[in-house]
Amino acid sequence: MIKNYIQENKDRFLNELFELLRIPSISSMAQHKPDMEKAAAKYAEVLLAAGCDRAEVYPTKGHPVVFAEKIIDKNKPTILVYAHYDVQPADPLNLWTTPPFEPQIRDGAIYARGANDDKGQGFMHIKAFEYLVRTGQLNCNVKFIIDGEEEIGSPSLPEWAIANKDMLSCDDILVSDTTMIDEKIPSINVGMRGLSYMEVEVTGPNKDLHSGHYGGAIANPINVLAGMIDKLIDDKGRITIKGFYDDVVELTKEEREMLGRAPFDEDEFKKFLDVDSVTGEEGYTTMERTGIRPCLDVNGIWGGYTGEGAKTVLPSKAFAKISMRIVPNQDNKKIAKLFEEHFLSLAPKGVKVKVTPHHGGQGFLCPISSNVYKSAARAIGEVYGIDPVPSRGGGSIPVLADLQQILNANPLLMGFGLERDVIHSPNESYLLSQFFNGIESIALFYRYYTE
Amino acid sequence: MIKNYIQENKDRFLNELFELLRIPSISSMAQHKPDMEKAAAKYAEVLLAAGCDRAEVYPTKGHPVVFAEKIIDKNKPTILVYAHYDVQPADPLNLWTTPPFEPQIRDGAIYARGANDDKGQGFMHIKAFEYLVRTGQLNCNVKFIIDGEEEIGSPSLPEWAIANKDMLSCDDILVSDTTMIDEKIPSINVGMRGLSYMEVEVTGPNKDLHSGHYGGAIANPINVLAGMIDKLIDDKGRITIKGFYDDVVELTKEEREMLGRAPFDEDEFKKFLDVDSVTGEEGYTTMERTGIRPCLDVNGIWGGYTGEGAKTVLPSKAFAKISMRIVPNQDNKKIAKLFEEHFLSLAPKGVKVKVTPHHGGQGFLCPISSNVYKSAARAIGEVYGIDPVPSRGGGSIPVLADLQQILNANPLLMGFGLERDVIHSPNESYLLSQFFNGIESIALFYRYYTE
Repeated sequence: MIKNYIQENKDRFLNELFELLRIPSISSMAQHKPDMEKAAAKYAEVLLAAGCDRAEVYPTKGHPVVFAEKIIDKNKPTILVYAHYDVQPADPLNLWTTPPFEPQIRDGAIYARGANDDKGQGFMHIKAFEYLVRTGQLNCNVKFIIDGEEEIGSPSLPEWAIANKDMLSCDDILVSDTTMIDEKIPSINVGMRGLSYMEVEVTGPNKDLHSGHYGGAIANPINVLAGMIDKLIDDKGRITIKGFYDDVVELTKEEREMLGRAPFDEDEFKKFLDVDSVTGEEGYTTMERTGIRPCLDVNGIWGGYTGEGAKTVLPSKAFAKISMRIVPNQDNKKIAKLFEEHFLSLAPKGVKVKVTPHHGGQGFLCPISSNVYKSAARAIGEVYGIDPVPSRGGGSIPVLADLQQILNANPLLMGFGLERDVIHSPNESYLLSQFFNGIESIALFYRYYTE
Repeated sequence: MIKNYIQENKDRFLNELFELLRIPSISSMAQHKPDMEKAAAKYAEVLLAAGCDRAEVYPTKGHPVVFAEKIIDKNKPTILVYAHYDVQPADPLNLWTTPPFEPQIRDGAIYARGANDDKGQGFMHIKAFEYLVRTGQLNCNVKFIIDGEEEIGSPSLPEWAIANKDMLSCDDILVSDTTMIDEKIPSINVGMRGLSYMEVEVTGPNKDLHSGHYGGAIANPINVLAGMIDKLIDDKGRITIKGFYDDVVELTKEEREMLGRAPFDEDEFKKFLDVDSVTGEEGYTTMERTGIRPCLDVNGIWGGYTGEGAKTVLPSKAFAKISMRIVPNQDNKKIAKLFEEHFLSLAPKGVKVKVTPHHGGQGFLCPISSNVYKSAARAIGEVYGIDPVPSRGGGSIPVLADLQQILNANPLLMGFGLERDVIHSPNESYLLSQFFNGIESIALFYRYYTE
């Protein structure tokens, strides 16, 4: 019984996970390159110990990728598990109760950067697999890809996957890197938004100036940038970029009704975030705004003096990171181009503007009629005692759309995260109950998948 | 002859100044408190060595102030020299060619934080005074105030000045902390703008969120802040704060014509700053926009992820430092209040906004019919071979308006800085020629002032 196996091995599972969490494998920061290599090697070791025939670290143009597999019979179906060993930066550090890379258990949850996203969630698959191998119950082939660049948009993985297409061949792709609606309302993601992420730089004068001597006569790049950002979204919450909505597929009334069945308490939502009001595109609900509609957010802004006290500077430059969530059928490269053209067209006289795209990715949809979906729904329904709801996810795992295309296999997003985990934020956490329920659900998934 | 004295002592002058420049006396940063005390003590030592009867460091509620004096005859007129020993922060450090607190001479200029503002300019007064004392030519009383908080708006000096009003009594206040139009077009400032400096904080959700999960449904504090900033200035370059212009005195056509006589080459100005266009309030020239009209500038902005690469965060908070230059007759406290009311009124639903005032100061005007102005004009005219032009300065030395009121004496702004010095910026510098011409002009000033 998987329940007993978890009970007998839980301390070991946590100790092994904590070893992974202690490695600050932040893919976006060059200084953490050695940690990336360390994490990749550690994952290969863990996968081999769990029962894989082989586990190897493959170099890519960027951070390495870990691949492992156990082939029991070439004629049996194959599951490809996708997870990632890289994590988001941990700043602002001062807001963490305990250090991000020193995992701690408090109030029934693991606190650490990556506790959920995606070390905690990815590790559930390795432990469910270990159980099936050790108890002789594995009845299909299993392959693992542990990506090192998910948080920076997986720039190297597609090329590597194309080059290793045969090795990666599979029937379905299984991923735990998303949230469910609630512990009491389990859900499975059937679609995700894509992403187009840009960085902009506005230059006014060629040097920082004294605001007393020049203020009033020179375009201030911060004021200008603020005005340009403000023009990107109109009064109805719609993005003003020309052509932005051209490829957005409007859902039918029936489709919207089906998705609307997922329970949502707006008062709880507002209370959780401590806001007096929700906002967004007119004519859509909060769930629709985050699930089936595109959006634009400034993810970061900086310029001028940001230290203690006051400095009367009229700065030379101002910067912002601006990203758009896109929906299936929108193309992230096309959107990046439309953004650039539009943003440059907003520049007034007196400034120079530069737009640089960061990573992007397509959105995608998974059919709920598939064996993989049905098996996951049955497993989760058994563990949670209630059938899961199909939902649309607002986040992006850009590489999954690529893998879907390269390997001609559907990704299933069987996520066990919760909103309260605040992934990407200080004090990221992962509930122990979700961690153990996840392992149990995945083990059951394999049983029903191969029935 | 002052020329000979400078020639014979120039190396010593520079060595002494460099000792002052090496102290990172940044008043706005708490960590530099020991440097502030060190700088104050050093200035007292230098003033005593230059010939003062006494020089003392006075504690205030903030950083100490240095006072020194030489009284030759109570019945003779008294000049009060105001200067400051504190400097602006030096960041961004990576843009400095040589470290900000390791002064260097390159291409005929001193490079260091404070080379001009105000250690370089203030030191000219000490050396001109030294010359007059050592050659027995001093014919009036001289007092020195060396402020330690000018760059943070001199919060402590007015109270200290009121408490020490008798000790500070004087006929005129002499200050070198401003620029002249050009080496070939010397000028004297007859008026300065005041300042009202605010910090704003916009809070959206109570924690940083994943932009994929929440983007589109929650007010993003950076987008909101950008919109609020954009609304502060209208299409005609006018500040939209209600009542902002109520106390602005419109200059007569004649006054504007007189100020317009100061030469100004817009092409040179644009070339110097590498901008394709000047901007500002409609109906005014560049010189008027920086001299006689108020303005509003964002001095700093920050929020969300500002590091390397991309982070898909929907941040909890965004911040900005926003300052307004005000003109004589506008009251900085009233303007701060109007700003706060107006800014809060711009907040949309879904965010909380906090406004905190930093320092402020009044603008002021000095009469050109005074003996002190005439003496300075004659001295500068003799050294530069051309009569100086009266001009209006855009910068602020807020405390001078206070001293003018407390001591009932007019401040004269005899500045020798140049635009090229880029005070407050990386690579602040001060031309050696201006430094030595300044010492010479000040020595001659005392001669004509006491004739």
